[in-house]
Amino acid sequence: MCLQKKLNIEHLISKDQKILVAISGGADSICLLDYLYKQGYSVAAAHCNFNLRGEDSDLDEYFVRDVIKKYNIELFVKSFQTEAFAKENKISIEMAARKLRYEWFEELSKENGFHKIATAHHSDDSVETILLNLAGKTGIKGLLGIPEKNGKLVRPLLKVAKTDILEYCNRNNLSFRDDKTNFETKYNRNKVRHLIIPEFEKINPAFSQNVLDSASNLKLYADFVDAHLRKFRKKCVVFQSDKTVLSIEKLKKNEHLKLFLYEFLSDYGFNYSQVLKIIISLDNQSGKMFLSDKYRLVKERKELVISKISKQEQQIYRIESQNDELIINKDNINEMRITCSFRYANEIDTLTDKKKGFFDFEKIEFPIIIRKWRKGDYFKPFGMNGKSKKVSDYFK
Amino acid sequence: MCLQKKLNIEHLISKDQKILVAISGGADSICLLDYLYKQGYSVAAAHCNFNLRGEDSDLDEYFVRDVIKKYNIELFVKSFQTEAFAKENKISIEMAARKLRYEWFEELSKENGFHKIATAHHSDDSVETILLNLAGKTGIKGLLGIPEKNGKLVRPLLKVAKTDILEYCNRNNLSFRDDKTNFETKYNRNKVRHLIIPEFEKINPAFSQNVLDSASNLKLYADFVDAHLRKFRKKCVVFQSDKTVLSIEKLKKNEHLKLFLYEFLSDYGFNYSQVLKIIISLDNQSGKMFLSDKYRLVKERKELVISKISKQEQQIYRIESQNDELIINKDNINEMRITCSFRYANEIDTLTDKKKGFFDFEKIEFPIIIRKWRKGDYFKPFGMNGKSKKVSDYFK
Repeated sequence: MCLQKKLNIEHLISKDQKILVAISGGADSICLLDYLYKQGYSVAAAHCNFNLRGEDSDLDEYFVRDVIKKYNIELFVKSFQTEAFAKENKISIEMAARKLRYEWFEELSKENGFHKIATAHHSDDSVETILLNLAGKTGIKGLLGIPEKNGKLVRPLLKVAKTDILEYCNRNNLSFRDDKTNFETKYNRNKVRHLIIPEFEKINPAFSQNVLDSASNLKLYADFVDAHLRKFRKKCVVFQSDKTVLSIEKLKKNEHLKLFLYEFLSDYGFNYSQVLKIIISLDNQSGKMFLSDKYRLVKERKELVISKISKQEQQIYRIESQNDELIINKDNINEMRITCSFRYANEIDTLTDKKKGFFDFEKIEFPIIIRKWRKGDYFKPFGMNGKSKKVSDYFK
Repeated sequence: MCLQKKLNIEHLISKDQKILVAISGGADSICLLDYLYKQGYSVAAAHCNFNLRGEDSDLDEYFVRDVIKKYNIELFVKSFQTEAFAKENKISIEMAARKLRYEWFEELSKENGFHKIATAHHSDDSVETILLNLAGKTGIKGLLGIPEKNGKLVRPLLKVAKTDILEYCNRNNLSFRDDKTNFETKYNRNKVRHLIIPEFEKINPAFSQNVLDSASNLKLYADFVDAHLRKFRKKCVVFQSDKTVLSIEKLKKNEHLKLFLYEFLSDYGFNYSQVLKIIISLDNQSGKMFLSDKYRLVKERKELVISKISKQEQQIYRIESQNDELIINKDNINEMRITCSFRYANEIDTLTDKKKGFFDFEKIEFPIIIRKWRKGDYFKPFGMNGKSKKVSDYFK
């Protein structure tokens, strides 16, 4: 049988372990549960009702409860008020569902002694994730795909394609419900799945496998650098309760500083072009400050010092390049959009639209930082021969 | 001006160097030539007429000769019989054009003392190349994009987008001819350009810049591993005139053997799954052999020995996975296609089609090696209870 040939899950779970299988009612999770059950693994199932699709959510739950009867296993079901949770915590619906789901699974594992939590992500999911990450800002990490294990979490079907899963369900007469639980990424994921991947497959029918192979190759690189990054941390970095301190003298001894400083600082939200500027700053005067969303990095005489910035300071947004569109989530419902585009001076005739501001492209440097007014802020309006004006005066 | 802001080419060429600019007559090369000329670089131009598009090729040449008159520079033009050259050398038209082009540029450089050869590849080309490589078999190297320099060859426009180039041509009233010289990759490149990238841009308008940023990140990883790979070569590998020998004892000391052995062996055409098997073989009996297109690797008692295989042995083809289609170029015109697919036993009713063979999926291991008959080859036909039969007897 095809699925079985591809599965080689001894390195993920063993027969003496108790496994909690996440079950949505879709083909993937039904297949996973059935396979593990029939292979003699000790399994229980957990179903989340996120109450996001009205009656449909309840029908999923009903279906799962019904399906599970034919297996002699335990089923846990929990109902979540996902939207309210998302609103309360000011996070996206998708993030909320993920948080609720994994927190509950962890709880169940502790209470019932499950050794592993298994989810039914498969190789198509992984390829799609890689392409979605490629579209967004990513480095090597986003190109590795979905990990096969992560702590207690395991994904036994990760090397199996969706077609194999459907074939398994078909051959084993398993019924399932269409999985509609992709929430917000759904739209983009669907674009990747239905528009982008099929075009790639016309270029090369083995596209998906090739992407996964490339990801395996990248993983070797990532692991190698990670091993060295640990040494770098030990050598150059001191973690204190309120700050992280990097010795400039030691940094300068690193032949691959760009790589390590980027890998280290990206965890604090600093981007590549900032890292390049930070490296230049090592030889310059003290006091230069760099900001990420949540952290401040200050170049002092002998050290780089990273500390958390306050909530208020966090109201800082960044435009990375001239084509960026910044979408600021004002209150989880209303958005504020800031777009940035390029015009030739002769195309600008009026400055009457108060929602538009014009800046000299020669003089601006990306990223553009957008933040609330601070005392002392000034600007140099056009037509004033380079004289500056206080922002506070302008808005009086 | 936008193009100028993005260009920062002092690290590629200096004003005291003589630059040969490759000029097709398209917007990219016209822009490059005009920019370098106006910036005061010492330039000459070289145009290849590949004679691949009949009159159109000659019109390109005529156009280039005409355009160059307004600059006070030297122009070299050469006409190639590209198709004949491709046929003679059994290579693709694209490969032939590339070979002819760069060989001629090298010659011109030597004869005329050019320090650098500049081509007009831009950032869109690089993004497209990355996506094309992603569709094919690639590792980290295919994801780095087009290099900015490679020996004498430099690509000053590599960080500039096509739109910026067109804008430059427009603002400077430069005329150009549509560049139609993409040869064979044209079809796939056009799919990437017109179908895939626009879809990605709907997901994220900054898609191209993000891909280039990811590539920069990957480059840091690749450079770091390369530095270590050089050490690995020195430590574990002995290059002899007819073979390359790797010490098994030393290999085993490498904590990241998978990475280094793969990076080393991929230059000899071995793939990832072969490398995994080679690593397993290190602890097994001697004599096991692995084949790539051009090389043979034998596991001996204390060494892995790599040697070139003869022309005849090279008639070896590989099917990497069950969905692979193998296209064998028989005589540069006729193709032989071997496809490999999966059927359930109950779907196979007749074995009468002589162009089809059935094999037990449970028993085969990828890659499947396809080669000419050798003395002693045997097989076990269905219905003979596992008894074997010589291939030579069967075809008698």
